[in-house]
Amino acid sequence: MLTGPSAAVRQQAEARLTALAKPTGALGRLEELAAWLAACQGVCPPSPPAAVRAVILAGDHGVTDETGGVSAYPREVTAAMVRAFVAGVAGASVLARQHGVALRVLDLGVDADLDDLGPAVGAYKVRRSSGTIDREDALTAAETRTALEAGATIAEAELAAGADLLILGDMGIGNTTPAAALVAASLGADADQVVGRGTGVDDVRLAHKTEVVARALRRSRDRTADPVARLAALGSADLAAGVGFLVAAARAGVPVLLDGIVPVAELCVAEDLEPGVVAWCAAGHRSTEPAQRLALDKLGLEPLLDLGLRLGEGTGALAALPLVRSAALLLDGMALLSDLVP
Amino acid sequence: MLTGPSAAVRQQAEARLTALAKPTGALGRLEELAAWLAACQGVCPPSPPAAVRAVILAGDHGVTDETGGVSAYPREVTAAMVRAFVAGVAGASVLARQHGVALRVLDLGVDADLDDLGPAVGAYKVRRSSGTIDREDALTAAETRTALEAGATIAEAELAAGADLLILGDMGIGNTTPAAALVAASLGADADQVVGRGTGVDDVRLAHKTEVVARALRRSRDRTADPVARLAALGSADLAAGVGFLVAAARAGVPVLLDGIVPVAELCVAEDLEPGVVAWCAAGHRSTEPAQRLALDKLGLEPLLDLGLRLGEGTGALAALPLVRSAALLLDGMALLSDLVP
Repeated sequence: MLTGPSAAVRQQAEARLTALAKPTGALGRLEELAAWLAACQGVCPPSPPAAVRAVILAGDHGVTDETGGVSAYPREVTAAMVRAFVAGVAGASVLARQHGVALRVLDLGVDADLDDLGPAVGAYKVRRSSGTIDREDALTAAETRTALEAGATIAEAELAAGADLLILGDMGIGNTTPAAALVAASLGADADQVVGRGTGVDDVRLAHKTEVVARALRRSRDRTADPVARLAALGSADLAAGVGFLVAAARAGVPVLLDGIVPVAELCVAEDLEPGVVAWCAAGHRSTEPAQRLALDKLGLEPLLDLGLRLGEGTGALAALPLVRSAALLLDGMALLSDLVP
Repeated sequence: MLTGPSAAVRQQAEARLTALAKPTGALGRLEELAAWLAACQGVCPPSPPAAVRAVILAGDHGVTDETGGVSAYPREVTAAMVRAFVAGVAGASVLARQHGVALRVLDLGVDADLDDLGPAVGAYKVRRSSGTIDREDALTAAETRTALEAGATIAEAELAAGADLLILGDMGIGNTTPAAALVAASLGADADQVVGRGTGVDDVRLAHKTEVVARALRRSRDRTADPVARLAALGSADLAAGVGFLVAAARAGVPVLLDGIVPVAELCVAEDLEPGVVAWCAAGHRSTEPAQRLALDKLGLEPLLDLGLRLGEGTGALAALPLVRSAALLLDGMALLSDLVP
């Protein structure tokens, strides 16, 4: 079990929150958030996260080869979006600039040659795309280990660059399908409880996507109690790297603001791999994917925002970041009621 | 009927949102927000609001004299909080600094002598406190007119200072009681549908508060179809000024980000006084007060945040402000899908 955020500092923060010049509990969810951040930093009041760094892990998914399709968009969009991040014109790029966040995109498994983007993007590429998951494993055991280690190395580089809060995003046409499968296998849920419309599939593709996940779960059910085998069977290089990333952040005691279904699916596996990771995570937003709600309920996390976002890329976490900073600033900057009314 | 935001520019914005490099609708509520802001500014893409100005209207309320009480806090807290805003140590002060918002507090009806704070705070003071509303009117007809005009003048000063978005906040122990009464009278609702716990009253005080509102509604029901008479009977100087403020902002075509129950109650009256005000307003957050939900449903507004905030002061609107800026920045800064995937 990993060491958790400081319970003693959390209590200090809760006591200070009660003493602030406001009715008890009147800052609502910002109070929990302030106490969590104080506990993570081990100091009360905490500093508002200033060196926030976001990583988008990109990959393609063999499941998009399946007859009938699982996504409303063609696979080529993944590589195009990696180029959009590099050019700074994606949704996440805009929000990262707004909030002073350093944003990095890494190609873990994009089914395209992105060598022209250089090692900053491609240094950790594991393979092109992944297995179909319903007829074959997503990754070999060796690829899974490589991807887990890549994710940890990527997180460690962000921490070495001084990150005081990390954001984990995703990019990959088809990625809500393996994410839903990982949530189902992690929680013991059925395919129809976890599958959602992703980028916006119609009813026919939704039924097909559900059948693909059901087949993948049936095919692998004897092996998925083990989190690494679960990633090999149902994940992908980008998803496995996300798991490694989250475990490394929690080991280092640096908080993570989660985005939508993909990072939350990664957290489900990370928590099984190394219990205690979840204590270092806050949920930025409520995805429209049913698997995210199921997983967050199980993990005991409640999202800050519920705006119907379903873009991925870390955008939900980036949009929620000002609230994390507000929580810290309020705990530090508000007067105590006893200072105002003697 | 006031002139509304530009329908043509709203359509331009919606067309651009559909063409951005993302699945259709994937920015969820931020898409509506971007289209509304574009329509308000009359230009697509809109600029992120940079000169945001927030006004907190402060006052005491005669209803806190009632035996049994309607608030968990004594009246003296109102004046103490006005001093906290001036000192920059209240919750709203912290959030205004975080987001670069100019914050001003004005004493419309505080039951204390705040002359030492000078005319910047006191220039529009109408009276000390207000009538009890259940046994007597809150204001005379002349006081009501004075307060409405004061609110308009206050808004016009903010607009003259260059505001491109206004935030309206409130401070006043007991103010959720007249706010609930105004919502009930505006919507034809009953006392038990609108009364909430405010700063956190217990069950006994909640029952008492409900009875006070029921008595106030019975006493005034023959006169409250007229919005100005409604304010005189059930409002207060600070609430009437809020109504004047909202009407003046809408007349000038400047958007307003609303906070909790008090500004929303003011909007209910403003919309009856000058239909079309609501089109210039967005709701920052979901208050815990039932009257706010009732009023927003009626007005057709859905809050951006739902964090259990119940502090007032404009804090819910201030916390939501980065999302308004995000909406504008995304509409402007994201690539078109056609640029990425030829």
